[in-house]
Amino acid sequence: MRSKCYFDTFEDKGEIMKGDFISQADIEHLQEIVGEERVSQGTSQRELHSHDESFHLPRLPEVVIWPHSTEEVSKIIKWVHKKEVPITPWGAGTSLEGNPIPASGGMVMDLQEMNRILEIREEDLQVDVQAGVVYKELNKTLGNYGLFFPPDPGAAATIGGMVANNASGVRTVKYGATKDFVLKLVVVLPAGEVITIGSHSAKSSSGYDLCRLFTGSEGTLGVITEVTLRLVGLPERFMAVRTTFNTTHDATATVFQVMSSGLSPAAMEFLDEKVIEAINHYKSMELEEKPTLFMEFHGFSEAGLQEEMGFVEDICQGNRCSSFASGIGLDERNTLWEARYDAFEAVKRTATGLSPLIIDASVPISRYTALVEFAKEATEKLRAYIFGHAGNGNIHVVIMGDPQDQKEWSQIEEANEVIVLKALEFEGTCTGEHGVGIGKRRFMPLEHGNSLAVMLKIKEALDPKGTMNPGKVFP
Amino acid sequence: MRSKCYFDTFEDKGEIMKGDFISQADIEHLQEIVGEERVSQGTSQRELHSHDESFHLPRLPEVVIWPHSTEEVSKIIKWVHKKEVPITPWGAGTSLEGNPIPASGGMVMDLQEMNRILEIREEDLQVDVQAGVVYKELNKTLGNYGLFFPPDPGAAATIGGMVANNASGVRTVKYGATKDFVLKLVVVLPAGEVITIGSHSAKSSSGYDLCRLFTGSEGTLGVITEVTLRLVGLPERFMAVRTTFNTTHDATATVFQVMSSGLSPAAMEFLDEKVIEAINHYKSMELEEKPTLFMEFHGFSEAGLQEEMGFVEDICQGNRCSSFASGIGLDERNTLWEARYDAFEAVKRTATGLSPLIIDASVPISRYTALVEFAKEATEKLRAYIFGHAGNGNIHVVIMGDPQDQKEWSQIEEANEVIVLKALEFEGTCTGEHGVGIGKRRFMPLEHGNSLAVMLKIKEALDPKGTMNPGKVFP
Repeated sequence: MRSKCYFDTFEDKGEIMKGDFISQADIEHLQEIVGEERVSQGTSQRELHSHDESFHLPRLPEVVIWPHSTEEVSKIIKWVHKKEVPITPWGAGTSLEGNPIPASGGMVMDLQEMNRILEIREEDLQVDVQAGVVYKELNKTLGNYGLFFPPDPGAAATIGGMVANNASGVRTVKYGATKDFVLKLVVVLPAGEVITIGSHSAKSSSGYDLCRLFTGSEGTLGVITEVTLRLVGLPERFMAVRTTFNTTHDATATVFQVMSSGLSPAAMEFLDEKVIEAINHYKSMELEEKPTLFMEFHGFSEAGLQEEMGFVEDICQGNRCSSFASGIGLDERNTLWEARYDAFEAVKRTATGLSPLIIDASVPISRYTALVEFAKEATEKLRAYIFGHAGNGNIHVVIMGDPQDQKEWSQIEEANEVIVLKALEFEGTCTGEHGVGIGKRRFMPLEHGNSLAVMLKIKEALDPKGTMNPGKVFP
Repeated sequence: MRSKCYFDTFEDKGEIMKGDFISQADIEHLQEIVGEERVSQGTSQRELHSHDESFHLPRLPEVVIWPHSTEEVSKIIKWVHKKEVPITPWGAGTSLEGNPIPASGGMVMDLQEMNRILEIREEDLQVDVQAGVVYKELNKTLGNYGLFFPPDPGAAATIGGMVANNASGVRTVKYGATKDFVLKLVVVLPAGEVITIGSHSAKSSSGYDLCRLFTGSEGTLGVITEVTLRLVGLPERFMAVRTTFNTTHDATATVFQVMSSGLSPAAMEFLDEKVIEAINHYKSMELEEKPTLFMEFHGFSEAGLQEEMGFVEDICQGNRCSSFASGIGLDERNTLWEARYDAFEAVKRTATGLSPLIIDASVPISRYTALVEFAKEATEKLRAYIFGHAGNGNIHVVIMGDPQDQKEWSQIEEANEVIVLKALEFEGTCTGEHGVGIGKRRFMPLEHGNSLAVMLKIKEALDPKGTMNPGKVFP
């Protein structure tokens, strides 16, 4: 039912009537602001901006626009605000919960051409970027300065998208999520006013923490156009571990023993035996097909890392690991981790033609074992692959299926439902890192209770006309 | 002009008319809620709750109340909300910017009797506490579990006060400020409704980050009654350094070389020669009276720390340090750091009978040297002592003076003004860790520009009657 193939029938169903909000005169005015070539009502651009990487129902915007500056963003918004045109900011479209789908049509504002690194302040360990800078490109440049921005979302996301979504990933367990790195933002508010929030100071107790409020607000409070990020020095040395266990329980018990040992892993990833099987197939590898942990440690001294490695091995042996491979150095780390980075691709290749539903939930680490075991059981009869950022209690279950096959897909959605509900029962959250978007809206009342009304009051106070990314976050 | 000796003349000046808001019938109702002994209109209790540890003008509340539970807090607030009684939440009164002074009179709600540690979840590295638990007491208990809550505000603060203020301190440079540890809060809103925000998950991208909004909001949005904190394992090993330099410039240059070297100091403190002189006098020590750095490093392996120490020494020598003392182990660390912990007390003892004005500002670390040098010059003719959390760019200047001596005190306030303005010119913040309270309100427009209006919209949306800690944060 929810599939990209609905593209073709959209127009017929009257779901994307061109001109709902935007007239020809508007288009002409927008062209005056940004130039003709940066406003499009063409079908292909509208289709490209109708969906993210999830299975969620696409929706065509009326118009796509590519601003090049905060000033242009402000002018555009001021113009369309009079007519209450819905505006959905767009990063790279790599979200997984429908976050940038223009659910009410209107305008998609694609920030990918605002992709300049504005200033690298090496001495302050800070960088100023425009919102459209791509995460991986940024880190490539920062590497020349011995610096990096740690959250690693995996996808080819933009910094603006990562901030809007509070993205995180493999390295969050040591360094934090995107929100932990945002020092300053330039935001265009829903009526077009430009504000600057935060400062270049590494710490502050000056008033309400608006940076944290806008980070993770998924474009529902305004358009983020510029970002100042705190950076971290590239680690001097790397140590990596790949280890397998006979049971999920032994693997996940290892996770929280390492986490509470005083060690500070830079990555702590769990992959179940089915993911390993998929990787072996995809990459012609011969990894032991058992519950597996990938760990990474960053340190200053080789002797220090050697000592840590011995300690980690003791913990793994204590949990009866069936294999333990480790190495110090970036090359060794890359070899040991090679399999991990292709996990999602390997899983997708197990069933070409099918779509993945990716569950994302997070629980206190003491409940991680129970959640993984519950998820295993709940997806027993499905093509399900379990992995996740175990050190943060973050689980992902990728379930492959055909959204057209109503019976199968409803079983998949049912599995999603029960796993997320179990995470909430375990005092966790319905989304560890993918955001609420469209997919997690229905869980918001259960997770947040009456504090959801506080979020809504803030939304209404800052976006009274509800034009910013409507249909997201709130049920 | 601003001094605690105004106590005596307050009543005469009509500034604290008993009964402005609260009638005898109200008192009786409040006594019904919490019991007679936990409601006071006595002068001594009202005086105790009329000022914090700053020089800011005290103001007597009409009534002080000590709730024991979230439910009581809710009942109290519901009762007094009808009459729009101002409510100022109270932690331990250790603030430094007048944050808990009941500036509009009304009720002070003292949370110190809500001081139970509710649950220590060792495996999850989390603790649930009532707001009145004292920071140091909490860490004493957590130590038995090998855990700790790192921000070290120095003062005998409560957890609720630390959260309301987003307190930080010596260890923030490695571990973060209070806001980086708050996972979940129970808050009583301005009309008495109880909400729970956040979850027990270590990470989340689920909706607006209300935890971060309430953290640092200084009681202006509600009363924080319970807090869930993320914890950190006690470090396996400690390494400490105390080193002196001939010039402030050499000392502060060392700071940012260490900070950007890939090392991760757990503390990085600067003290100027006058602070060292005060310490020598107070503690009969013979430290070299020169610009001094105190550093601390936490690690897992002794060999690793040895290597780091060598590297730190190289940096210090490269900046022509005139002395360098270091040691590994908790005892060595405590010996080397003994002087640092008494710095404030030592400074106060240089001028008994006088009051301290404590400047708190923070800048990007590349501007730290310039700010320290500017502060030195600006306070040349005053009894000023400069120190601070240099690794975060956070400066403190303690200036001793007599608030009754109008001429001197206005010079002191002038110095505060120009140093804070310089910090803002350097793209820093008017308060690194003490909060806005009363003292920093006037800098808010300059620091935040039109984003201050966004903060105000949030305040009005959540506290439309303006009863929560009025007169704070906003100018």
